[in-house]
Amino acid sequence: MTDATNMRLKLPITCFILEIILIILFGVLVEYDHDTDARKWHEHGNGTHGHSDYENDFYYRYPSFQDVHVMIFIGFGFLMTFLQRYGFGSVGFNFLIAAFALQWATLMQGFFHGMHGGKIHIGVESMINADFCTGSVLISFGAVLGKTSPVQLLIMAIFEVTLFAVNEYILLTLLGTKDAGGSMTIHTFGAYFGLMVTRVLYRPTLEKSKHKNCSVYHSDLFAMIGAIYLWMFWPSFNSAITEHGDDQHRTAMNTYYSLAACTLSTFGMSALTAHDGKLDMVHIQNAALAGGVAAGTAGEMMLTPFGSMIVGFLAGIISVLGFKYLSPVLEEKLKIQDTCGVHNLHGMPGILGAIVGAVTSAVATRDVYGGGLEDVFPLVASEERTASYQGSVQAISLAVTLGIALLGGLIVGFILKLPVFGSPNDTHCFEDGIYWEMPGEEESHEELTTVRTEESEKLNG
Amino acid sequence: MTDATNMRLKLPITCFILEIILIILFGVLVEYDHDTDARKWHEHGNGTHGHSDYENDFYYRYPSFQDVHVMIFIGFGFLMTFLQRYGFGSVGFNFLIAAFALQWATLMQGFFHGMHGGKIHIGVESMINADFCTGSVLISFGAVLGKTSPVQLLIMAIFEVTLFAVNEYILLTLLGTKDAGGSMTIHTFGAYFGLMVTRVLYRPTLEKSKHKNCSVYHSDLFAMIGAIYLWMFWPSFNSAITEHGDDQHRTAMNTYYSLAACTLSTFGMSALTAHDGKLDMVHIQNAALAGGVAAGTAGEMMLTPFGSMIVGFLAGIISVLGFKYLSPVLEEKLKIQDTCGVHNLHGMPGILGAIVGAVTSAVATRDVYGGGLEDVFPLVASEERTASYQGSVQAISLAVTLGIALLGGLIVGFILKLPVFGSPNDTHCFEDGIYWEMPGEEESHEELTTVRTEESEKLNG
Amino acid sequence: MTDATNMRLKLPITCFILEIILIILFGVLVEYDHDTDARKWHEHGNGTHGHSDYENDFYYRYPSFQDVHVMIFIGFGFLMTFLQRYGFGSVGFNFLIAAFALQWATLMQGFFHGMHGGKIHIGVESMINADFCTGSVLISFGAVLGKTSPVQLLIMAIFEVTLFAVNEYILLTLLGTKDAGGSMTIHTFGAYFGLMVTRVLYRPTLEKSKHKNCSVYHSDLFAMIGAIYLWMFWPSFNSAITEHGDDQHRTAMNTYYSLAACTLSTFGMSALTAHDGKLDMVHIQNAALAGGVAAGTAGEMMLTPFGSMIVGFLAGIISVLGFKYLSPVLEEKLKIQDTCGVHNLHGMPGILGAIVGAVTSAVATRDVYGGGLEDVFPLVASEERTASYQGSVQAISLAVTLGIALLGGLIVGFILKLPVFGSPNDTHCFEDGIYWEMPGEEESHEELTTVRTEESEKLNG
Repeated sequence: MTDATNMRLKLPITCFILEIILIILFGVLVEYDHDTDARKWHEHGNGTHGHSDYENDFYYRYPSFQDVHVMIFIGFGFLMTFLQRYGFGSVGFNFLIAAFALQWATLMQGFFHGMHGGKIHIGVESMINADFCTGSVLISFGAVLGKTSPVQLLIMAIFEVTLFAVNEYILLTLLGTKDAGGSMTIHTFGAYFGLMVTRVLYRPTLEKSKHKNCSVYHSDLFAMIGAIYLWMFWPSFNSAITEHGDDQHRTAMNTYYSLAACTLSTFGMSALTAHDGKLDMVHIQNAALAGGVAAGTAGEMMLTPFGSMIVGFLAGIISVLGFKYLSPVLEEKLKIQDTCGVHNLHGMPGILGAIVGAVTSAVATRDVYGGGLEDVFPLVASEERTASYQGSVQAISLAVTLGIALLGGLIVGFILKLPVFGSPNDTHCFEDGIYWEMPGEEESHEELTTVRTEESEKLNG
Repeated sequence: MTDATNMRLKLPITCFILEIILIILFGVLVEYDHDTDARKWHEHGNGTHGHSDYENDFYYRYPSFQDVHVMIFIGFGFLMTFLQRYGFGSVGFNFLIAAFALQWATLMQGFFHGMHGGKIHIGVESMINADFCTGSVLISFGAVLGKTSPVQLLIMAIFEVTLFAVNEYILLTLLGTKDAGGSMTIHTFGAYFGLMVTRVLYRPTLEKSKHKNCSVYHSDLFAMIGAIYLWMFWPSFNSAITEHGDDQHRTAMNTYYSLAACTLSTFGMSALTAHDGKLDMVHIQNAALAGGVAAGTAGEMMLTPFGSMIVGFLAGIISVLGFKYLSPVLEEKLKIQDTCGVHNLHGMPGILGAIVGAVTSAVATRDVYGGGLEDVFPLVASEERTASYQGSVQAISLAVTLGIALLGGLIVGFILKLPVFGSPNDTHCFEDGIYWEMPGEEESHEELTTVRTEESEKLNG
Repeated sequence: MTDATNMRLKLPITCFILEIILIILFGVLVEYDHDTDARKWHEHGNGTHGHSDYENDFYYRYPSFQDVHVMIFIGFGFLMTFLQRYGFGSVGFNFLIAAFALQWATLMQGFFHGMHGGKIHIGVESMINADFCTGSVLISFGAVLGKTSPVQLLIMAIFEVTLFAVNEYILLTLLGTKDAGGSMTIHTFGAYFGLMVTRVLYRPTLEKSKHKNCSVYHSDLFAMIGAIYLWMFWPSFNSAITEHGDDQHRTAMNTYYSLAACTLSTFGMSALTAHDGKLDMVHIQNAALAGGVAAGTAGEMMLTPFGSMIVGFLAGIISVLGFKYLSPVLEEKLKIQDTCGVHNLHGMPGILGAIVGAVTSAVATRDVYGGGLEDVFPLVASEERTASYQGSVQAISLAVTLGIALLGGLIVGFILKLPVFGSPNDTHCFEDGIYWEMPGEEESHEELTTVRTEESEKLNG
């Protein structure tokens, strides 16, 4: 609560400048797309001639969009409330940086792959993509949770969204990679970017805040709200921008079974790795979601429920082992202080998902996909490349993603180290009181005591 | 906990009489509409001839309905749990009056604009409208939160739903006003109605309950659940009853960007107006939603994302300033005790939304809307009125709404003052214990102490 | 925390063996159905010839599926967090057994009514059915909540899912019963199965854990999250697998009004039956949902909103009376220790729903249903049976369900009594500490005290 962390001017200036820039750029660059523009939609007739209202992309994607939206704002936000005194920062900063990132992502993604005659065309699909890109920023947020100011987080979001869009452009447009649920573009990218940032921001005396870097009973229940929402809606996440019809349907179902299998292996591993057989909430809240991450690339493919379950089963095992044995090593040896363990939930399962996607691509045949091959692997269907070549491209995409994420995180980490952004010192990490007005603080001791006495009298009847 | 506040007979009698009247009126007046009736839907053929199942309005509106439903019951309910000892009343009375209001609204709205041959026809659109009307009652509930008995709230709902339906009829049917997301009909109406009610119910010695009229750490987190759900699903709210196709799509997108911009200006203003730069949860929970309110009228129009963001940006600023500077004045000078600050979240942003709607209507041209003009401004499309005339009508509608809300609130406020409804006295406001069985009350002191000691022993290892 | 309850090996072995068996069986038996398979979906053409993407069953059912999914994982999970120290077990074990049950149910239900050429075909409809079956297991979980180990719960799920599928097969396939929302197959079955299990597992000295078998203020608020989600999404639950078009639409609406009426009668009855007129959270959290249970069979029929409201109104009354007067009798006289009172929420309202369904079926006429008769009562439409015969079949189905549930619960109860599953002893029921790593346990006394002192200093300013 020194002057350095005072947000009185830093945060308003950052917020206002960013939002005004966004508004100007939207004014200059952004237009309704065909399905949201009153004139364009009605130009092609409506009803018996031309398209009908039920063909509007809104009805194919909006329910999935809302599920994704819940994952971004409730899922990520509440998952991080496990910290006993950082609930406001978890939900609140998650809210702030997500609201910024989705606007900035609209522009960046539009710039790289949504330009039509100098204008960015937007609709429900671009909204989902913007939320996806935001998810990547929130994963990185998980790595630095409790150790950064809101201004630092906004600065991080500016750069990360930009690099996300570059990486996405290289993969999806230049390389023709398939990654509908973002095992690579979202999870691997967000995790390794965040891990590198937290490495650069390494705090040697963070143990001063150690007693606040843990959960209490009720904070773990709040975190379960976030975890369960992420788990439930992951099928919508992975299927939100796949092709219409069987593709969306199949992707949702593959993810559903991957997650279910992952949950069983997570519970099993959690009890197995505890010295007294007790389940650890950290595993349940995080590792049980790894099945969704790992089905992000191959979910839209003919992975079969059988294959999905194997993937989910492995993801849960890897993730619990990561929390138990790898995270302490990363912290001690590599000086990576990963607050939420994003390496275990998004990093390793993301890599697993990328590998599964590469293998599943490499074995794709027209025999299995039939006429649907064009939807899933258009370049294979048009015989521009073979399935095994597609598999190689998928594997290369993982390397590209890791490279951009690590290099980007390195640079952005150093930018965030500039001592002007109001970062908390080591004794005040994981503590809402620095950036938030705390409830009850303004009441006098006497008043509170009176209330408390009254209450306990009442309680004790 | 005097006899006056004892609900043993008052509440059951009110509930049973109201529900029995509702059941009788539904039996006499209500029928399935074309899309819900087995015979009528199948009369026009199904499949290749006549309409297909996917043309049933259910598939266009039910996902939006469920989002609205979540806003009404979780959104409003939990937003109000910020009070430290009024969580049961917030969620519970919200639940009760919403369940009543949606039934009564079905009848009142049906009576005014859903009659077909003496019968009220209902389906998913009427369900959304009923939830909308309920939302208005819940806004007024926010103004009187903690100071009224459940019987008073039910009485208020009876009158408010009725007046809502009258105002809605005047606007939408008689004047031809456009207000799909209800900046006027829902937010402005609900806010000023509630503010007038709380003015009439002014309690000069409410400071006796002051120490309970604030939040604690966990209650603020519960309130964030409500706030975030309202924020996420507002695009569904504003687009739930617009025309199919591009209209629903565009409205959802405009609202999405308005809210995002609003969130940034809210965070900025919250830090700027605090003496030490700390963010205030009250602002984050409320002002960040003002962008949804302000996009309620113009959201379906060709406002453009650019315009939506400007509207949201302003709404956030106005709302925080209202909480910080206007609410204390309203309380001290005008004796308006507005528990949740509905004037800042629904009142002023509602008026802003109405003005934006009037201006956007006045500048509508066929050039911009093309064939979609018929959907958004049917009377302008049919050349019954000019766009600028439509704009004037929108402005007049705001005045009509304010008039009916204030006059209605005045009368209903005096009705609620009748000393028979079991209102709490000034020392027991904001306290669940009056109307709710409190957990733990029936256990003896010794038992509780034992448990507590056990727990703290466990906790302290 | 004796060796018996140590899950170090028991739980991992159970989870891994079960999941590996599931994966093998999925590999051998399960295939994508027509709407999820890339080849099959595209075989019949796409676009102008053959079906279009919007005809894929995904778009008719996936939004409903996600609502059902929320009910299963958030609804049931959080509803049970009302216990002060069993929140981890409530949400966590709910999560575990649901994730297992939905996979096992896919196989069992597929085996009984989804086989095509030796393969089980799956898609969104089978996913909904799997979630439904899971719901039944979770109802039984409610009866034994806090008194069983996770291994016992998994064993129970294995048998209950199997018997559920048998009963469902007898009713829906052999008898031609209609039960879209599962008043019989899900609620009655799950409740009486669970009641019989808890009867067999009767604990004579359970009062040793009595002080933990109750709620605290915040745990009741967490439970309200679950309750409200169940309430809101019940219309989606009952309509999720009815026929497309008017059927889904009508079912959702009937349920909506049934629940609204039920809420008013619940609040009325709760105040009426309390000695001091105070509302009881147990009633609000549970009895207000009975209207959804009771509309489970007749919801898809031409019950009319009027009829639905009467059903809901009665369900609320019965349920509160059950909590107040019947549950204590069941516990004392019949030795049925029903932790969550599932008899009042699922048992009696389920029976009421079955009876309403039988009566509504018996009076069905072509005059009322028109061409829709084929959708709702195909055997009556094809004149294979009369409406009154259908009504008799519905009544017989209730008896069959009760028989299988009670007999099944009896046998499974005795299996669960085997002393190898790590069940807690009577002093450690309703206590998370046995199976869960409790937060804060590993910190030393001094550290915690320091934190606490700091915090209270801050709090008292």
